Amino acid sequence: MVNVTVFGKGNMGSALAGLFESAQSPVQVLDSATSADEKITGEIVVLAVPYSALDGIAEKFGDQLKGRTVVDITNPVDFSTFDSLLPAADGSSAAELAAKLPESKVLKAFNTNFAGSLASKHVGENPTTVLIAGDDEDSKTTLAGIVEKAGLEAIDAGSLKRARELESFGFLQLSLAVSEKISFNGGFAVLR
Amino acid sequence: MVNVTVFGKGNMGSALAGLFESAQSPVQVLDSATSADEKITGEIVVLAVPYSALDGIAEKFGDQLKGRTVVDITNPVDFSTFDSLLPAADGSSAAELAAKLPESKVLKAFNTNFAGSLASKHVGENPTTVLIAGDDEDSKTTLAGIVEKAGLEAIDAGSLKRARELESFGFLQLSLAVSEKISFNGGFAVLR
Repeated sequence: MVNVTVFGKGNMGSALAGLFESAQSPVQVLDSATSADEKITGEIVVLAVPYSALDGIAEKFGDQLKGRTVVDITNPVDFSTFDSLLPAADGSSAAELAAKLPESKVLKAFNTNFAGSLASKHVGENPTTVLIAGDDEDSKTTLAGIVEKAGLEAIDAGSLKRARELESFGFLQLSLAVSEKISFNGGFAVLR
Repeated sequence: MVNVTVFGKGNMGSALAGLFESAQSPVQVLDSATSADEKITGEIVVLAVPYSALDGIAEKFGDQLKGRTVVDITNPVDFSTFDSLLPAADGSSAAELAAKLPESKVLKAFNTNFAGSLASKHVGENPTTVLIAGDDEDSKTTLAGIVEKAGLEAIDAGSLKRARELESFGFLQLSLAVSEKISFNGGFAVLR
């Protein structure tokens, strides 16, 4: 049984809290406004907040996040233009977060999934697959185990460097949905 | 009826020639070794060659390619490390090609499809979808029409700037296949 903390109460935060609960993981739900005095209980801490909120959480809870697995799920798109990602072209929001939390085990995951497909566990007729990138093998294995226990599939997408490609993937998928080429109930499925 | 020229006789070139033939497009097949004297007949010219061969073709056939639609299908991965793409981090091979062929209408397409899914027209139980990026709307519409006539689906993925994300997408998909997380008969399907 792995305790999970989810920061964020939006569509993604709610879908993820439901996913972890369905895997019998006790879930603590917090948000960006939570006091720094609040004790984080999760061995895994999922930041289901906008990209712009990551820095604040890293600063406020940096000490508490030491030693924990921290999951960045953001798609750091410039929403004013919908024409680029905000991190440096050779970087990623996950790499930025890892630089701010050097004693945490940072993973990139869930940014390639829409909230709907996390809840329904399907993309079309295909099982929903969570792509997970990170440099800590144990953290990836633990998160993949919870995802699979919840009835979804998980694939290790490689080192944290692959977060750059996952963020491009998420951006592309979002841009197709926003331009109504696909629906938010569709998207990219992963076939083995 | 749109004439198509395919440069390249490998897995992808062969699959693409078959696709265009099944759409009743007359197909001319050439390769990097073809003499510059050969007359290109395709209104659409698909470069199904490795990234390293693009420059040579652009130089040798640059004059003939003026005014034509030129399709870059490459995944410009550093295959010695399988850990990065070769173009500048904020660029793409398609953008590089467009800079070398300013009077051609350059598209990025087919790099997110494996040869097997082009031939079978399915990824799992899902129809194979070709993602097409480019700045010339008519070229995209014409190519999408041929793809659909061949029995596959096509989605306009936006401007040529989106080639960067398509190349990240293709790199990620390849890296999962090479590391045997997915098979070359699997990959990413697009659900509407």
